[in-house]
Amino acid sequence: MKQDIIIESAEIIAIGTELLIGQTLNTNAYYLANQLTLLGISSYNQTVVGDNPVRLEQALRNALNRADLVITSGGLGPTADDISLSIAAKVAEQELVLNQQIKDEITAYFKKLNRQACANNWKQAMLPKDGVVLENHNGTAPGAIMAFDYAGRMKAIACLPGPPDELIPMFENSLKPWLEERVAYIFKNRFLHLIGIGESTAEMRLRDLIDKQSNPTIAPYASPGEVCFRLTQRIPKSKGSEPADKEDLLQNLVDEVYARLGEFIYEDGNRSFPQIVFDLLSERGETIAFAESCTAGLASAHFGDIPGASAVFKGSVISYSNDVKQQQLDVSPKILAEHGAVSAECAIAMAQGVAKNLQVDLGVSITGIAGPDGGTKDKPVGTVFVAAHYQGKDFVEQYRFNGNRNRIRNVATLRAYYMAWKTMTEQEK
Amino acid sequence: MKQDIIIESAEIIAIGTELLIGQTLNTNAYYLANQLTLLGISSYNQTVVGDNPVRLEQALRNALNRADLVITSGGLGPTADDISLSIAAKVAEQELVLNQQIKDEITAYFKKLNRQACANNWKQAMLPKDGVVLENHNGTAPGAIMAFDYAGRMKAIACLPGPPDELIPMFENSLKPWLEERVAYIFKNRFLHLIGIGESTAEMRLRDLIDKQSNPTIAPYASPGEVCFRLTQRIPKSKGSEPADKEDLLQNLVDEVYARLGEFIYEDGNRSFPQIVFDLLSERGETIAFAESCTAGLASAHFGDIPGASAVFKGSVISYSNDVKQQQLDVSPKILAEHGAVSAECAIAMAQGVAKNLQVDLGVSITGIAGPDGGTKDKPVGTVFVAAHYQGKDFVEQYRFNGNRNRIRNVATLRAYYMAWKTMTEQEK
Repeated sequence: MKQDIIIESAEIIAIGTELLIGQTLNTNAYYLANQLTLLGISSYNQTVVGDNPVRLEQALRNALNRADLVITSGGLGPTADDISLSIAAKVAEQELVLNQQIKDEITAYFKKLNRQACANNWKQAMLPKDGVVLENHNGTAPGAIMAFDYAGRMKAIACLPGPPDELIPMFENSLKPWLEERVAYIFKNRFLHLIGIGESTAEMRLRDLIDKQSNPTIAPYASPGEVCFRLTQRIPKSKGSEPADKEDLLQNLVDEVYARLGEFIYEDGNRSFPQIVFDLLSERGETIAFAESCTAGLASAHFGDIPGASAVFKGSVISYSNDVKQQQLDVSPKILAEHGAVSAECAIAMAQGVAKNLQVDLGVSITGIAGPDGGTKDKPVGTVFVAAHYQGKDFVEQYRFNGNRNRIRNVATLRAYYMAWKTMTEQEK
Repeated sequence: MKQDIIIESAEIIAIGTELLIGQTLNTNAYYLANQLTLLGISSYNQTVVGDNPVRLEQALRNALNRADLVITSGGLGPTADDISLSIAAKVAEQELVLNQQIKDEITAYFKKLNRQACANNWKQAMLPKDGVVLENHNGTAPGAIMAFDYAGRMKAIACLPGPPDELIPMFENSLKPWLEERVAYIFKNRFLHLIGIGESTAEMRLRDLIDKQSNPTIAPYASPGEVCFRLTQRIPKSKGSEPADKEDLLQNLVDEVYARLGEFIYEDGNRSFPQIVFDLLSERGETIAFAESCTAGLASAHFGDIPGASAVFKGSVISYSNDVKQQQLDVSPKILAEHGAVSAECAIAMAQGVAKNLQVDLGVSITGIAGPDGGTKDKPVGTVFVAAHYQGKDFVEQYRFNGNRNRIRNVATLRAYYMAWKTMTEQEK
């Protein structure tokens, strides 16, 4: 394998009829595009084609004419339909040969399942003679990287499997390190997540930094329901092993953003909001429960996404009806009669009730009108109250969200985590 | 507008830097590809490009060389970056002229927001002189269709806005009817959804039908956690207004699938499983509640997706801890000690408890091990019990699901709906 390829640009070709007929979302292109961006590799085209030799070859050649690297996803299966590697090898003018180690691994894989590998399966052991084989620990199809001279310039094709559960670990474990050795620059990224401020207001406060930026750069980063800035420093590869600059320009920029917007920053990193709340609770040895009305379990379900959530999460009450609010959460009939189920008073009572009845340190509640029906003049669709009960104190916020039922419920869930985080961190001060 | 274009093939070009850098999933291509398939229009390539005039023009010309129609999404905004319509008009050799009606509508839109339209906004009123204008009821950017002679054949470009909330209604209301007039065939589709049977077993039972198919056709349709078959009849356009054939071939095929697999078919249509259960409960004037452990609110949250869910959904108890199972669901300490929280006995007790305490007709429970930790030799990760309590009777199923935490929780949720449906429909017989 020659080391004399520098990768500055790449294209993604996703292969599969299921993408062309709209049965599958192209999450692989999304994932790979994001990864390329973080590596500082530019991408100006993405393509989807089916398992058709002529069209795939054309797509590969078009992409190689424009970019240093082409990453394909899909078409590595054992059937005759799966042609990615053979077409890629043809374009790269490389020979596919039987890889005994991979053949042995496939045999072992089938033996473990008490099944016999058939001739088709050996096709997956036919790999480029001079390429890099990318092992697949989550399926039978190995991937491959081929670097070759294409019309006078060194180019590369990397073939990855289609299932995201196979593609993502293979990228992480094998292709990403390979790329890191071949990019011209190292990109250091920091992600600052803000909540409680609009994107345009936040950008305005950073306007001069954004306008004068060259390196490091600062740019808004799309993230639903919150504001995120990506701060990126480009470091020439040659400096990679040298001692760090005296001045850490990236840290200086981070500090400047904190000085201007620190009160809204809830994460310097990539943890999800439930994970942040989980980490805080774990540190303190405290427990949480939710009382959810309009979100109907969304906040709880997100907490359940975290492996090991049960260490701090005891449970929740979904109180869609007033009966359940009264009987499971001890909300008084008086509050419901005088203020209604969508009120600050009811939200506080729900948070208190769930904390008491489920015996947790932090009770968080959500009650609101997700629509499309149920809105009134005083409390239109989108009106949501979020409350918390923590260490004997009550906290409540009223919101008025725009958008459809789905958006209102998702943003309300995010705000419930914001409430949990704010309640716990404000207690700290 | 000439009517002499017949559309048999189409390509989708999604335009936007956010797609190239992996900040946004290409849901527009997914939606449009699915819609084209349902209209019987073939698609062999999809492309993503940024707001770059040279690359967009090249992508348009490549696509027009291959397909009758090109649909673009994105790049219709008011800024100088938004170039879709001007490049499409250049390729179509059409002139953009000020459309006074659209200009008036934009003025009215801004007036309603108490804002003043600026010169940029008039750019959105510059529309093809000979094209079809597609009104946008959810934003300011209208779309457009241009049909034109391209290298001796009639071709068309349709430009749609990027935000899905604008693109989908515009497709539904304007582009779809335009396409329906220009396809060679009408496609009648039926979707049969099955549960409780594997895809390969179901396919085997239909093997002869699949092998001999020509028209109508039958094919598996990807749908996570369940099996779905799409049955499609192609009817020549010329027959569209004639009386129907004496023999309804599509209905005959549906009947044949029912004869072979009827016991597994839970839906002949496109309703979601929660919607089906909601409809059943509504018909009967009955109510539901969930007791969720490992799914932590997923089943409840899906029920809350349905507008008006509160008519039949009273609430749920998320019982992650044994304390909550005992105190909120009356699961006896004896059951927990003797059988454990992940057991048929505990699942039944949870379903009974939630039905009694929340006073509903149907209690549905889920308890299991979603992993990655917590598995034992007897009850490995993926072991899930789903139970129901309905009209004095108890129902329970044990499952062993494969996959990661996320998949196990999602499939368990689907099985909870299956349990609810089966319980209610078996009672019927």
